[in-house]
Amino acid sequence: MSASVDLNADLGEGFGVWQLGDDAGLLEVITSANIACGFHAGDPATMQRVCTEAVRRGVRIGAQVGYHDLAGFGRRRMDVATEDLIADVIYQIGALTAFARAAGDRVRYVKPHGALYNTAAVDDRQALAVAAAVAACDPTLAVLGLPGSALERAAAEHSVAFVAEAFVDRAYTAAGLLVPRERPGAVRTDPVDVCAQALSIIRDGRVLSIDGAVVDVRAQSLCLHGDTPGAVNLARRVRADLQASGVELRSFV
Amino acid sequence: MSASVDLNADLGEGFGVWQLGDDAGLLEVITSANIACGFHAGDPATMQRVCTEAVRRGVRIGAQVGYHDLAGFGRRRMDVATEDLIADVIYQIGALTAFARAAGDRVRYVKPHGALYNTAAVDDRQALAVAAAVAACDPTLAVLGLPGSALERAAAEHSVAFVAEAFVDRAYTAAGLLVPRERPGAVRTDPVDVCAQALSIIRDGRVLSIDGAVVDVRAQSLCLHGDTPGAVNLARRVRADLQASGVELRSFV
Amino acid sequence: MSASVDLNADLGEGFGVWQLGDDAGLLEVITSANIACGFHAGDPATMQRVCTEAVRRGVRIGAQVGYHDLAGFGRRRMDVATEDLIADVIYQIGALTAFARAAGDRVRYVKPHGALYNTAAVDDRQALAVAAAVAACDPTLAVLGLPGSALERAAAEHSVAFVAEAFVDRAYTAAGLLVPRERPGAVRTDPVDVCAQALSIIRDGRVLSIDGAVVDVRAQSLCLHGDTPGAVNLARRVRADLQASGVELRSFV
Amino acid sequence: MSASVDLNADLGEGFGVWQLGDDAGLLEVITSANIACGFHAGDPATMQRVCTEAVRRGVRIGAQVGYHDLAGFGRRRMDVATEDLIADVIYQIGALTAFARAAGDRVRYVKPHGALYNTAAVDDRQALAVAAAVAACDPTLAVLGLPGSALERAAAEHSVAFVAEAFVDRAYTAAGLLVPRERPGAVRTDPVDVCAQALSIIRDGRVLSIDGAVVDVRAQSLCLHGDTPGAVNLARRVRADLQASGVELRSFV
Repeated sequence: MSASVDLNADLGEGFGVWQLGDDAGLLEVITSANIACGFHAGDPATMQRVCTEAVRRGVRIGAQVGYHDLAGFGRRRMDVATEDLIADVIYQIGALTAFARAAGDRVRYVKPHGALYNTAAVDDRQALAVAAAVAACDPTLAVLGLPGSALERAAAEHSVAFVAEAFVDRAYTAAGLLVPRERPGAVRTDPVDVCAQALSIIRDGRVLSIDGAVVDVRAQSLCLHGDTPGAVNLARRVRADLQASGVELRSFV
Repeated sequence: MSASVDLNADLGEGFGVWQLGDDAGLLEVITSANIACGFHAGDPATMQRVCTEAVRRGVRIGAQVGYHDLAGFGRRRMDVATEDLIADVIYQIGALTAFARAAGDRVRYVKPHGALYNTAAVDDRQALAVAAAVAACDPTLAVLGLPGSALERAAAEHSVAFVAEAFVDRAYTAAGLLVPRERPGAVRTDPVDVCAQALSIIRDGRVLSIDGAVVDVRAQSLCLHGDTPGAVNLARRVRADLQASGVELRSFV
Repeated sequence: MSASVDLNADLGEGFGVWQLGDDAGLLEVITSANIACGFHAGDPATMQRVCTEAVRRGVRIGAQVGYHDLAGFGRRRMDVATEDLIADVIYQIGALTAFARAAGDRVRYVKPHGALYNTAAVDDRQALAVAAAVAACDPTLAVLGLPGSALERAAAEHSVAFVAEAFVDRAYTAAGLLVPRERPGAVRTDPVDVCAQALSIIRDGRVLSIDGAVVDVRAQSLCLHGDTPGAVNLARRVRADLQASGVELRSFV
Repeated sequence: MSASVDLNADLGEGFGVWQLGDDAGLLEVITSANIACGFHAGDPATMQRVCTEAVRRGVRIGAQVGYHDLAGFGRRRMDVATEDLIADVIYQIGALTAFARAAGDRVRYVKPHGALYNTAAVDDRQALAVAAAVAACDPTLAVLGLPGSALERAAAEHSVAFVAEAFVDRAYTAAGLLVPRERPGAVRTDPVDVCAQALSIIRDGRVLSIDGAVVDVRAQSLCLHGDTPGAVNLARRVRADLQASGVELRSFV
């Protein structure tokens, strides 16, 4: 069984006057903050505030990179040319790096957001673009993503460390994939279920699929959400449960 | 007389499919490239290309930072709150830094663009915001701007090096300011006049104003333009003339 | 005393995934909806939804036009060239017109937002640009704004109807201007005060200033807010109080 | 043989300070102007200028609608939700309508741009969204596009007129599709070939494919380009040739 696990969540996803999620609440729970970098969400002043607060709390800073699509919150797949996608990702990492440094730390990892996350999980071209950008910025950065994904292979190809994450509030299929959000039972909100899945992933490296099959799920980090009502309370409960079960919460880098 | 002078120009001011200026032509002439960072112009792929080419040619990389206003090319004064302006400038410097590093060098200086240049020359609040951002990113960065400006005072207050620039193709008033663009005689295009003004600035630290008065003009860098027809040829001629007169062309850092 | 008054409020000020204000709650209270048009806030799908709902409830549709500045929510003054500002306003009115027509009605009036509202109240050039745009789109549109403002004069110059509005939750100076937001007492939240000010404006055409002076306030419309906690409840109370006092709530067009 | 044909081209595709194509040159040649509406290109002041000039010359105004992607010039396929795509297209048509009316005319037709053109040619969902938006704005608007495309079927489903266009400077496959741009011989620049293809389409309703096969090509409008060197001259030559051959150049509405 793992002695420790990382908890990651998306932060800094407001834009200008618009707020989203409970950044302050999540920073009390997580060990790694995926901070939006201005392309799908996040503005410079928000990035600076969240970086400063993350450093103050000892939470690791990661670049949550996305498509250049504020209107769609980066949730719409885009056929971005390889050279452009590499440059878009470098740009976002660089911008966040400046705030991380001004706050006295540095960016530790990169996690794609939304449609880029989903596309980089299955599309080798976009996955390789993301990994190439990470390697070009700083080969000591890790990539955080879905185990077994195209992104994991791309990270290996670019000699970049890959950190696997699992989801505690989403049901898995027997094949180890996430049940699509729109299907009944895809999203779990019962704290008992969520905490049980968290422990099962960490202790046993497996979960029960939506059909009751036992599925292997390898994960060094658990992804939590903070943008729905009650989500931060659920995240707090997961954290408390893990600690009560003797799991140390510790960032992966 | 100065043994040497720096030549700076704005580069990378296209956006997506749209081109502006002759980046390749200017890179043969200048010693310092003010590269647009995506807020008033410039996109990530362009930033990467221009950084790579600048490093290949030994041209220094500077961050040309502007207001977040693509539609207005950063030429419209904006009342940006101090905290937001600081963060906007840090963001832009950070993004360019990633490309400069990926290209094997680093950002050396920061120059405000357009309306931010003009505002930071006279408005202490915005000037201090720019200088604070530079200091927060990297206190070894220089600020390039108008001698005697609010920006020069702000740089001093934040212990950031300030590099004074002068204009070879613009007429000066007797008070040492630039004659506004819309007035007759404000912009000089005759190569003989332009080269004479360049030499006069470097050798004597002075120019003849539009009214014939002798005006002190302190400058470590001369600003050239590349976005009008014939501008790159004029820049080439200035460079050749300076070299023929024994002036060494050398970046200020 | 006025037999009737219009109640207006800002609606549709979300953008993409981000929400702002309680559009549904306000639509139950107001008679005129100032709908954001995508430049400072508002996206096409939101515009369509709000127009459809406004028409269903018999609420008049107005174009809330702003500077092209999503990052600043249109709250930052911008020195936009006259020709550009005219075109920006026509563009926004035109876009909203398409949704109003698709919903079975039309745009009735135009109200500038944020920094454009404040600038057009005192700056003749920008005020004339707004009025010229309104006249170019449809001379039967009204302009909603501050009585005695540059915008009122500009509307007259372009033969466009002007509708004066007053604020029920803001304190006035003895000169009849709004007390700046940051001063103590500038914003009123006590329902009794707010309702008293509403009645005083409608019945007597005057308010008590923050210093206790009697000030004339001419208004055909009262502006309500919905973007702060409790604001919609306050708006509901104002509406109920006015109706209980025999004031008919009716759109000005 | 057709007595007449329409010539259409993309106009107003600059943005802010950036220019693209030769709007003035094309307006002398074409009968229908596809004017960019601000989502992939085009800014309000440009839209106003081009509309005014088109009306002055008797050129018909069409809305060239695209994905909301300035950075990619609308050339990157985006998975936009149906409701959002409908609203995006209504928004763009509405904005252009305001300028067309201010110039004394109206929008006559809608043509998707770039990746939206290509997607709406094969993807029923996006094609139906475009057609639904057109019908919602004004059912008398026509849709201009590729004959036999999903967009043609979608227009029929929404009872909107469809106008088929053909390309005079692109090679066709034996199946009647365009040879992809990157293949040798895909783009024709020899004036003799281009004029021959234009005449062949109009007179005979057919072209010779890149493999020498005879292919039926139905077209009421010929698409010309103006954004490459020599393109406007080629367009002029096509126009002159058609007229010399007794073909009348006349807008389709």
